[in-house]
Amino acid sequence: MSLVVVGSVAFDAIETPFGKIDKVIGGAATFISLAASYFVKPVQLVAVIGRDFPEETINDFISRGIDVSGLERDLNQDSFFWSGKYRADMNTRDTIETRLNVLADFKPVLPRSYRDAEYLMLGNLTPDIQKSVIDQMVRKPKFVALDTMNFWMNPPFVDQLIENLELIDLLTINDEEARLISGEYSLVKAAKKILEKGPRFLVIKKGEHGALLFHENKIFVAPALPLEEVFDPTGAGDTFAGGLMGYLARTENITFDNLKNAVIYGTTMASFCVEKFGPQRLLELTVDKIRLRYDAIAALSSYERALF
Amino acid sequence: MSLVVVGSVAFDAIETPFGKIDKVIGGAATFISLAASYFVKPVQLVAVIGRDFPEETINDFISRGIDVSGLERDLNQDSFFWSGKYRADMNTRDTIETRLNVLADFKPVLPRSYRDAEYLMLGNLTPDIQKSVIDQMVRKPKFVALDTMNFWMNPPFVDQLIENLELIDLLTINDEEARLISGEYSLVKAAKKILEKGPRFLVIKKGEHGALLFHENKIFVAPALPLEEVFDPTGAGDTFAGGLMGYLARTENITFDNLKNAVIYGTTMASFCVEKFGPQRLLELTVDKIRLRYDAIAALSSYERALF
Repeated sequence: MSLVVVGSVAFDAIETPFGKIDKVIGGAATFISLAASYFVKPVQLVAVIGRDFPEETINDFISRGIDVSGLERDLNQDSFFWSGKYRADMNTRDTIETRLNVLADFKPVLPRSYRDAEYLMLGNLTPDIQKSVIDQMVRKPKFVALDTMNFWMNPPFVDQLIENLELIDLLTINDEEARLISGEYSLVKAAKKILEKGPRFLVIKKGEHGALLFHENKIFVAPALPLEEVFDPTGAGDTFAGGLMGYLARTENITFDNLKNAVIYGTTMASFCVEKFGPQRLLELTVDKIRLRYDAIAALSSYERALF
Repeated sequence: MSLVVVGSVAFDAIETPFGKIDKVIGGAATFISLAASYFVKPVQLVAVIGRDFPEETINDFISRGIDVSGLERDLNQDSFFWSGKYRADMNTRDTIETRLNVLADFKPVLPRSYRDAEYLMLGNLTPDIQKSVIDQMVRKPKFVALDTMNFWMNPPFVDQLIENLELIDLLTINDEEARLISGEYSLVKAAKKILEKGPRFLVIKKGEHGALLFHENKIFVAPALPLEEVFDPTGAGDTFAGGLMGYLARTENITFDNLKNAVIYGTTMASFCVEKFGPQRLLELTVDKIRLRYDAIAALSSYERALF
């Protein structure tokens, strides 16, 4: 079943305690699409790039089975650019520079062939752009997921974001964002408030501490793979969402039990992403490598229950 | 099989965002013993209290099947006293005051009936006191666990602490402490370095993010129970260790697989501890309540593996 992915396709400059790179492919939709492409075809990409974006990467997308007919190129501007520096803990990062460039007036137009997709992943963008994409679908998709960030949780953007929550099935945010949008410190209370606003499912991403999936009154706790070295965490959250949505679109089973596995496949893909700068690692995978990693992650939290 | 528990039995004054209490029973050995008492009898307590410690609490210990023949009372001084205040996140706390009192020159003497115990839990105390307890055992116990804190990871204490690691089977510390003692930020690297120094097992406690169990090249990730309200986290780490060691002493099975369940029982007991001030909640439990909570925690991380 096809999956539409909307978001940025861009350049990043990244500094981590392990190295520095001045220009590497980045963008939420890049990571989401590549991760999802191992599970489902076609992934139908919607994004805007500038005159500076390499044809080679577009060919990478195509060879991964990603439909790029919704990838618009604006020849008058450069691509979106973000530069950031990670602190020693690798969990906190400071933005050094953001150049919106082509994103400043991005108004995505979905190709006709995308508009009846059953799975839709809205990567981090302004809430009004996310809304405009939902509006272009000719029928309500089976499952809509939305990723966002703290920046949109303040006026004047937050009202549209809250409105969007009524239209989606899954929200993916991190713990800090869950606290910010709900006004609750306890993640259990935060999740209740967020689920009341519309989405049936909520995933709270906690980086090295794993992820929490909330649905009705149920909670699933997914471990992260403890790693010797996190080389570059950029895109890990998007890769997680891509693996999750790819698995869901492939299996077409919208139940809490299946969402658990989707979260584990998201975790699996994210564990690869952080091993190299940019999306490099996501271009080198095979189904076998993914299955082996999935097994390693499953082993982490498995045990035989024993009553005493 | 009997379990010897050494540590402080004391008073705390605690302020959390949810309330304040000027004087409540505290101390590592209090939480460890009470938690372990639901799994194994006798728990053989070694500690020193002052003239101010209530007879009522000693009776609570006795009615929980705790052997208090190693509980010494010093009639010339008051009990150890700690006061602290938790920040809004409930994960960070500031010490307001520490009065060592009876702990200043505590030299534990193990009753003869304790000295051939097969399970020994060394609660947080100065490393030289912990060593003196190990020395008093007439034969090497089957399993020795040691809990400690950042304060002892600096000169002049750290050398004795490192020496103790050769004599124990399990070290329990939190993530910050694991990083401090190993000099490694990655917990996987930190664990390797720590295991090389002696203990066969390492548990890294991460509070609301659960716990990691390391053994050889294997890792087990235990979830914490997501709670609506953490009323008072004081003693949660000790309660965790008590549940873990109680379960281990009961089942007498020192394997990675059984340690996994011990960690889950530790998690189970800790989830009760934080519901009320002090050890109150640990006095109200039943085996049935513990089993139900264990099931709830097991459900959190369980899923059926699905290949794609």
